[in-house]
Amino acid sequence: MNQLDEYLASNKQRYESELAELLRIPSVSADSTHRADVAKAAEWVADQFRRMKLEVEVVPTAGHPIVVAESPPVEGAPTVLVYGHYDVQPPDPLEKWISPPFEPTVRDGNIYARGATDDKGQMLTHVKSAEAWIETAGKLPLQLKFLIEGEEEVGSANLDKFIAANKQRLACDVVVISDTSQFAAGQPAITYGLRGIAYYELRLKGPDRDLHSGTFGGAVANPANALVTMLSALIDASGTVDLPGFYEDVEPLTAREREAFAKLPFDEKAFMEKIGVSDLYGEVGYSTLERRWGRPTYDICGLTSGYQGEGAKTVLPATATGKFSFRLVPEQDPKKITAALKARLTELCPPGIEMELAEFHGGRGIVVPLDSPYVAAAEQAIEDGFGTRPVFMREGGSIPIVSTFRELLGVDTLLLGWGLDDDNTHSPNEKLCLADFHRGIKSSAHLWQHLGELK
Amino acid sequence: MNQLDEYLASNKQRYESELAELLRIPSVSADSTHRADVAKAAEWVADQFRRMKLEVEVVPTAGHPIVVAESPPVEGAPTVLVYGHYDVQPPDPLEKWISPPFEPTVRDGNIYARGATDDKGQMLTHVKSAEAWIETAGKLPLQLKFLIEGEEEVGSANLDKFIAANKQRLACDVVVISDTSQFAAGQPAITYGLRGIAYYELRLKGPDRDLHSGTFGGAVANPANALVTMLSALIDASGTVDLPGFYEDVEPLTAREREAFAKLPFDEKAFMEKIGVSDLYGEVGYSTLERRWGRPTYDICGLTSGYQGEGAKTVLPATATGKFSFRLVPEQDPKKITAALKARLTELCPPGIEMELAEFHGGRGIVVPLDSPYVAAAEQAIEDGFGTRPVFMREGGSIPIVSTFRELLGVDTLLLGWGLDDDNTHSPNEKLCLADFHRGIKSSAHLWQHLGELK
Repeated sequence: MNQLDEYLASNKQRYESELAELLRIPSVSADSTHRADVAKAAEWVADQFRRMKLEVEVVPTAGHPIVVAESPPVEGAPTVLVYGHYDVQPPDPLEKWISPPFEPTVRDGNIYARGATDDKGQMLTHVKSAEAWIETAGKLPLQLKFLIEGEEEVGSANLDKFIAANKQRLACDVVVISDTSQFAAGQPAITYGLRGIAYYELRLKGPDRDLHSGTFGGAVANPANALVTMLSALIDASGTVDLPGFYEDVEPLTAREREAFAKLPFDEKAFMEKIGVSDLYGEVGYSTLERRWGRPTYDICGLTSGYQGEGAKTVLPATATGKFSFRLVPEQDPKKITAALKARLTELCPPGIEMELAEFHGGRGIVVPLDSPYVAAAEQAIEDGFGTRPVFMREGGSIPIVSTFRELLGVDTLLLGWGLDDDNTHSPNEKLCLADFHRGIKSSAHLWQHLGELK
Repeated sequence: MNQLDEYLASNKQRYESELAELLRIPSVSADSTHRADVAKAAEWVADQFRRMKLEVEVVPTAGHPIVVAESPPVEGAPTVLVYGHYDVQPPDPLEKWISPPFEPTVRDGNIYARGATDDKGQMLTHVKSAEAWIETAGKLPLQLKFLIEGEEEVGSANLDKFIAANKQRLACDVVVISDTSQFAAGQPAITYGLRGIAYYELRLKGPDRDLHSGTFGGAVANPANALVTMLSALIDASGTVDLPGFYEDVEPLTAREREAFAKLPFDEKAFMEKIGVSDLYGEVGYSTLERRWGRPTYDICGLTSGYQGEGAKTVLPATATGKFSFRLVPEQDPKKITAALKARLTELCPPGIEMELAEFHGGRGIVVPLDSPYVAAAEQAIEDGFGTRPVFMREGGSIPIVSTFRELLGVDTLLLGWGLDDDNTHSPNEKLCLADFHRGIKSSAHLWQHLGELK
């Protein structure tokens, strides 16, 4: 590994130049005028693999191409699939960028450009680490498969289909993704759990038009009144979801996890300041990190009814709509929850109101067992790269591709984030810390070593 | 009265022509391009009074003029103030009118034009009845004061000020307004009660921007969750308002009223069809008419929070807003209710949420005592004019001018509606039944007689 580490150290300048090269391509997947740029970025990535003599294909889709590459199988070593994306978010609002979004600029040790952290910079760490192995050892210590898509920022519409049709080709033992963040600056992390989601829209219809609330108020059920009554009945004052069977399948947080979360340098005051609230709030009996990462929640995402303009209008609305979601943890089943929800809302719906419950995407929560040998390998690799042992965290959101890999390929994913939570992902002045970029490359190079020793 | 009745009968043609003349003036108060037309209508009305040799003034205001006229005091007889308005709603959408809105057209015994029922036609009945008295008896049997404004359809912004500054000039024993409807075709009514209102906007602010509901869900109070919880806590499952002291001052419906309401030819099925609901709903223990007319209610008028577009967006909204009102009955006090509401909402507001309660207009409910001699006189006059005894009804809405007269002049108002509830007020194809127009004139002429005998 010494030779490898030296090689990485002496190539830093080149890695940064190559990252800047990729960042200069405005591969905005949402903007059709950038179609050629997106294709150019795909080719740039494919060229990296071609130079490493991997088997490469740029797979056309109905949208933007998928770059697939693989190194030869290694007898007795596992196969790892690296997922990433070369497309980026639109750069608007342009006037808020200190340096132009597609002219990568280094300030204070950070490289500023759209896609720096999400995901060009993070993705490239695994490409460069593989290259380093090939340049120094002549080959990789395990088989790597790369799946680098160009539609992550627009919903990955064509990726699931591709994975479903190429299960054999993508078969692997574990997936590695770097598209998340460290726990804090200087504190790398392994994200081993994600929440699932069940998202709904409740539509209530009362009278066939808005009525005068004076003339008609008291005569008929008001859809807006019904909406607040029905939606509020789903949660109690202690922040507990009030739906039969909702907690039945919830896997409790383990004592080990609760202890580990409690030890994390989580500054509640700084967190409150960051999001601009005077107090935190949620399910009684759990810490803030436990509530965000390991407990199911119920959040209303949108409310629409009646008069929304300025001032007062005395209207009894014809309709009322609420969008809301439950965030789920293992082993909650979105289907079971939908059934319980439908039954409960039907029960709550007053006479004279027609109710419709639309179901949007649903997905289960995921937890990678902490005692997995892959996790241990990642832990060691990150310590090698960052000089600090990573902490273990979960994430409250969902990363749909992780569920897809679980479902279609039957494998777990290691989420190794090199970014920071102030990287301005999806915002102006996106950045990546260059020191973390190099630490990421080193961690990745060591990860192939440690994973390669597993089988 | 025989001579008067004959005079009315022989002048029907002229009354209709004069009504058509007034209806031809597009006095749309909301539309500044019609400013001259509004002034023309004021002059038209003033000319009516001038011809009758009343004392007339067209009072300019910051907006449209107020026409004030009065006949000489009559010793031993009461003074009656007639309120009405000569301005009309905009006629849009024009393409839905069968005949043009300002070209009065008679079809099936109805005159179709903007303002036919609201309020030119109804207002004119009292002008023509006064004229008939002067033409036949040479004078009126009581003193009449007319207050005909041109800003009713735009909120009467300048009227309150005028009344407050002219209390002596407008002093009277009772007010008469014809700007409402009969109970049903062929069933005239006296509206003796109106509900009051207390209208609020509850604004909740949580985090300083919309947050990702996955990453942050469970950490902080969600303003939309808080809104539905707080607004739903104000009413219980039986439709009863849940606010300390809310029912304390409610004057119960009398046995006589409940009996009278029950006898009214109110067809629940037809009512449900009219507003497009499959069922009626409201406070347990009261009939639909009782709930609409004589019981306080709580109706949410608008809800706004988070994502309102199509599909799903996983957002924990920064803010949530609800507009709602209580309809009040005598003797509920809006100020007392505001105080109780503020206290209760403050209690319900979860940690981390900033709450603001904006108070819009508030007004008390009003009931004219049924045993008032003015009511008895109106009852007789309507029977004289319509050949049918009127029923007594209340109205669920508020008519702010009635509260103003109560407050500033200390008098009750007789609401004698000649219209029908399918007159398309504020809609295309507004109409007035011409037979009711003449019945209204006759009732009004008899009303002056019966009221004149009172003092």
